[in-house]
Amino acid sequence: MRRVAIVGAGMTPFGEHFGLGIKDLLPMAFTECIANVDKGIAPAEIQAAWFGELSTTDGFPSGILADSCGLLDIPITRVENACATGNDAVRNALFGIASGAFDTALVMGADKVRESASKDTFWEWAGMTRDMAWDYPLGLIAPANFALHVSRYLHESPATREHMAMVAVKNHRHAVPNPKAQLRQEITIEQVLNAPMVVEPFGLYDCTPQSDGAAALVLAAEDVVDRYTDRPVWIRGVGLGVDRVMHQHKADMTTFPATVRAAKAAYAMAGLTPGDIDVAEVHDCFTGVELISYEDLGFTDRFGAYKLMESGATTIGGSLPVNPSGGLKAKGHPPGATGVAQCFEIFEQLRGSAANQVDGARIGLAHNIGGPTAVSAVTVLGRDRA
Amino acid sequence: MRRVAIVGAGMTPFGEHFGLGIKDLLPMAFTECIANVDKGIAPAEIQAAWFGELSTTDGFPSGILADSCGLLDIPITRVENACATGNDAVRNALFGIASGAFDTALVMGADKVRESASKDTFWEWAGMTRDMAWDYPLGLIAPANFALHVSRYLHESPATREHMAMVAVKNHRHAVPNPKAQLRQEITIEQVLNAPMVVEPFGLYDCTPQSDGAAALVLAAEDVVDRYTDRPVWIRGVGLGVDRVMHQHKADMTTFPATVRAAKAAYAMAGLTPGDIDVAEVHDCFTGVELISYEDLGFTDRFGAYKLMESGATTIGGSLPVNPSGGLKAKGHPPGATGVAQCFEIFEQLRGSAANQVDGARIGLAHNIGGPTAVSAVTVLGRDRA
Repeated sequence: MRRVAIVGAGMTPFGEHFGLGIKDLLPMAFTECIANVDKGIAPAEIQAAWFGELSTTDGFPSGILADSCGLLDIPITRVENACATGNDAVRNALFGIASGAFDTALVMGADKVRESASKDTFWEWAGMTRDMAWDYPLGLIAPANFALHVSRYLHESPATREHMAMVAVKNHRHAVPNPKAQLRQEITIEQVLNAPMVVEPFGLYDCTPQSDGAAALVLAAEDVVDRYTDRPVWIRGVGLGVDRVMHQHKADMTTFPATVRAAKAAYAMAGLTPGDIDVAEVHDCFTGVELISYEDLGFTDRFGAYKLMESGATTIGGSLPVNPSGGLKAKGHPPGATGVAQCFEIFEQLRGSAANQVDGARIGLAHNIGGPTAVSAVTVLGRDRA
Repeated sequence: MRRVAIVGAGMTPFGEHFGLGIKDLLPMAFTECIANVDKGIAPAEIQAAWFGELSTTDGFPSGILADSCGLLDIPITRVENACATGNDAVRNALFGIASGAFDTALVMGADKVRESASKDTFWEWAGMTRDMAWDYPLGLIAPANFALHVSRYLHESPATREHMAMVAVKNHRHAVPNPKAQLRQEITIEQVLNAPMVVEPFGLYDCTPQSDGAAALVLAAEDVVDRYTDRPVWIRGVGLGVDRVMHQHKADMTTFPATVRAAKAAYAMAGLTPGDIDVAEVHDCFTGVELISYEDLGFTDRFGAYKLMESGATTIGGSLPVNPSGGLKAKGHPPGATGVAQCFEIFEQLRGSAANQVDGARIGLAHNIGGPTAVSAVTVLGRDRA
């Protein structure tokens, strides 16, 4: 397959942008991304775009991207895949370039979760990402549905709420130096454990905030990459996996088969194993999900996540830092933007210019899971072409 | 680019399926599609899927496709691009196969417009396909926004409401033998002109019905196509074009630049011209839009559509039959399914097995425009590989 690299990346700060709409956030991320291409790129050199957006706050997604960024003469596809939306936009752009149809492409992701003009409530928006007839009427929106998984995980694995709290403390600490992060204050284990309960076993600090934001990447084919930079970041592997939507159909609540499938595909395409990963951005919408994902991504054995957490391996300075950006937990989580922003973070990490740098990182991984654990995407990036 | 063919196609009848949800419609179309592969295909041979859905009636689209069709071990991407959704799903699946990532792929499209559990009203759903801040609050949902275009077109071109009525009469007549069509009764010019007014210049019979339905295609790479059929239909060209979303930004109301851009890209990729097309399915959500599209697709000169209509060329038996299936106007229009169902129709036409067959057709075109004329997609199919 024709190889594809990221040659530029940008993102807005994630946060509560009450004064900004999608039409404001998109050009902010786009402008920063373009400016971040070492040798420059004119908008007219971008041949196609893929746009990940979950909500449709401001209306028709593809057209609004075209309008607000002045990209009227290229095809734009909106991709939606719950919390895996951003990574799947990257994946489809990769296929577009690898096919030979285009030499360059823009990938953008954006969402406004803090207000949604087109939907009555956040709850209604949440319904789009699960089963409307069964799970949704029972109240199984994101916190409740992940709580079922993590409660069972705490029962079957040696992990405790303290291990979950360690995830929150780590990711908050990681976010402090990151100017793009939404929650930049350190917290303590005690604060996490004593916080108001959202849904058992998740207290307030076990949960990602609701965020607005946008992120952007410019991709280029191996044939033209030298025009744009001498230090590209290669897309080594992409994987997308699905699983049953409804909870009564899930055979084992303590693992996410969608992640296992996505990771298997991405590692196979990259010709790499979990042991090759130097830095990772892992879906931590709720703290326990980061623990389960360590296992599903192959970073440790089944039910071994608590040991990995205790070892400090996943903290900056450890052998496999996870969520140096702060993760969804502290950087924030506008779902359509999240996977694209993870790739922004890994891009910066592999070029040595991240806000919270992992020394010498050469291979990085981005991971998301959503659609009540019915979909997951994994993106593997590398300094080296292969 | 690696060549890709359609080797199987299926669709549900389009109509008011009050008793059926997306979870029912998807397996109906999938089952018919699989059964339509000449040499057979096992579901396990399908390596990836792309799913076009505009509304999210039943919840998370990708997961519900996986669940309801038993396709849990493959990646599934939801694509949304207003009324161009179905064609854009075909386009992205083509890139996936052409890139070498997959040898086979499923493309599905579905929508339930007649009821929407996740949205308060059809109007709210309609807001997703335009600008929420400007056009939508002014009432510029589909009929009103196309009425602005067609009113100006009637003013500038020699076309009249009688020519629009001829489109409705033609497409209703075409639908009569089509068992999949929603409106299978003939109508007269007088009925169209005397029908209750929806929005000037569209009477009731100038408008597409609201429809529920699903459609499916199986795509295969040139390397493996022989496993599945000896009479594939090749995807010769795909094109996607965008334009400004808001009406105050449209420089000329009598032409759709999105269609012009999409057609240019599709013809270029196919190495064909408008004169090569033997049969076409053209977006006729409102009768006047079919006339404007004749011009934008290059079937006739600017403001020449009325003459093409008067000549009978676009009727079955003419030189370039348009909408032999009945079109959106009489076959129906569940937006996510429409582009996929157009490809089903052209697939059947090029294999000589359509309900309303165009004799000797070897090259066909499918076209949609939506997102208040801010997006258009064109798909060119052929009996011959190139």
